[in-house]
Amino acid sequence: MIPRSLTLVLGGARSGKSRHAEALVEAFPAPWTYVATAQAYDDEMRRRIAEHRARRPAGWRTVEAPLALPEALRNVNPGQPVLVDCLTLWLTNLILGERDVAVATGELLAACRQVEAPLVLVSNEVGLGIVPENALARRFRDEAGRLHQRLAAQADSVVFMVAGLPMTVK
Amino acid sequence: MIPRSLTLVLGGARSGKSRHAEALVEAFPAPWTYVATAQAYDDEMRRRIAEHRARRPAGWRTVEAPLALPEALRNVNPGQPVLVDCLTLWLTNLILGERDVAVATGELLAACRQVEAPLVLVSNEVGLGIVPENALARRFRDEAGRLHQRLAAQADSVVFMVAGLPMTVK
Amino acid sequence: MIPRSLTLVLGGARSGKSRHAEALVEAFPAPWTYVATAQAYDDEMRRRIAEHRARRPAGWRTVEAPLALPEALRNVNPGQPVLVDCLTLWLTNLILGERDVAVATGELLAACRQVEAPLVLVSNEVGLGIVPENALARRFRDEAGRLHQRLAAQADSVVFMVAGLPMTVK
Repeated sequence: MIPRSLTLVLGGARSGKSRHAEALVEAFPAPWTYVATAQAYDDEMRRRIAEHRARRPAGWRTVEAPLALPEALRNVNPGQPVLVDCLTLWLTNLILGERDVAVATGELLAACRQVEAPLVLVSNEVGLGIVPENALARRFRDEAGRLHQRLAAQADSVVFMVAGLPMTVK
Repeated sequence: MIPRSLTLVLGGARSGKSRHAEALVEAFPAPWTYVATAQAYDDEMRRRIAEHRARRPAGWRTVEAPLALPEALRNVNPGQPVLVDCLTLWLTNLILGERDVAVATGELLAACRQVEAPLVLVSNEVGLGIVPENALARRFRDEAGRLHQRLAAQADSVVFMVAGLPMTVK
Repeated sequence: MIPRSLTLVLGGARSGKSRHAEALVEAFPAPWTYVATAQAYDDEMRRRIAEHRARRPAGWRTVEAPLALPEALRNVNPGQPVLVDCLTLWLTNLILGERDVAVATGELLAACRQVEAPLVLVSNEVGLGIVPENALARRFRDEAGRLHQRLAAQADSVVFMVAGLPMTVK
C-alpha cells in the first residue's frame, strides 16, 4: 500500500500549482481522487473548472466538496492518492457561507492527519500585495495565512510555485 | 558579549514573520529588546498589537518607536539582541506623517550599522500583486522595495517567509 | 562568439529586477542591446524610464519595442547580449492595444528560441496578492502567469528577486 504523506503546493495565480500537484499525484499508481472545492457561481469560474477538468487524464475520480472537505478526507480509501484543489476556494466558501472558520480548519487539520494515503493540497498565496482596502479581503488573507502556517507545520513537503517551477520550502 | 549581526525577515501577511523573528532573537540569552513601530489607530490594529504582545515571554523589554526608530537603535545596549517589528508600519507612519522618507531611511541604515548587538528587522513584502490603483499605495510599495534592497545589501542574513517557514535569500 | 542562453528574471515591484538583469548582461563583453517596452503615457512613467536609462553605462544600444518585441528579437545580432525590460509592459501594451495575446506570445516564444546570443527577460510577478476586483487586472495577471510559465519552461535559468537578491528557481 502506498504510504501516507502530506504535501502543500502554494503559489500565486497561474503559477502552475494545479498542474504540478496533478503530476505529484499521477507519479503514484491510479486510481487517484480529485477533491474539487470550486463552486460554479459565474461564467468565469465555470470556464476555469472546465479547463482544469479537461486537462486531467482517465484514472481520476472526482469528489465535490465545496464545504464538507474534512468529511471528504475522512472517506478517502487507504493507499489511494488524493488531490485537494484548492483550499483557497474552500476558505472562500466557508467565509461566504458564514461558517465557523476556526472549527472547520481544526477539523481539516485533524482529517489530514488521518488520511492513510499521499495527500496533496493546493492553495493560493494571497498575502504578498498591498493591504486590501476591503475588510473581507483582509480577513480572507489573514485566515489563509494562518491555515497555510498550520498545514505547513504538519506537512512533509511544502513547495512555492514560481512560473510553473517548484521552489522547495520544506 | 554577543557579536553584532543584521537579519532581515521578509514575507507576506500572516506568513509567520514575527514568530520566526522572535525565535531568532530568543535563541540568544535575555534580556531582549522589542522595538514596536505600531500605532493603535483603530480596533483592528489594537487587536493585532495585543495578540503579538500576548505571545512574547518574559525577558522582553518593549520600546515604542512609531517614528523615532533610528534614535531607538542608537540607544540599544551593546550585546543585547533587538527585534524591530515592523519596518512596514514605520514607513507608513513616515509617509502619513509627511516626513522625508529618504532622510529617515538614510538615518535608519546608518543606525543599523552602528548597533553592536544582534538586530532582527521584520518587514512585509508588498510588491507581488497587481499595481495598486491608489497613488499612495504605489508610492508606499516603491519606498518599501527600495528600503528592503538597501537593508538586504548590508544584512548578514535575509529570509523570505512562506507559510511560517523561512526560505534563505542570503 | 558568445553562446545563446535564456534567462528569466522575475520579481515584485522595486525588487531589483532591472539592476540584476543589467549586471547579468554586462558580465558579457559589450555591445549590449537594451530592448525597452515602456511607453511614456504619463509623468510617473516618464520619470521611471529616465531613472532606468540614467543608470545604464555606455556600451548599451537602446531599441524601443512597445509592441513589436518578437520582430526586435528576430533582428538581434548573433553573439550580442540582449536585455528585454520588461515583459509586463509589453503585455500591458498588447492588451490595451487589443492585440491577440495568444498569437503575440506564440511569436515571442518562437523568437526567443531563435536568438543566437545571451537573452535576459525581465518581468513582474503580479499574482501573489488578493484576486483583483477589476476584470482587466484579473485577465492581465492570468496572461502574465501563463507567459511566465511558458518562458520558464524553455529558459536555461529562472530567478525570483527578493529585496535585490536573486533566488534560484531553475
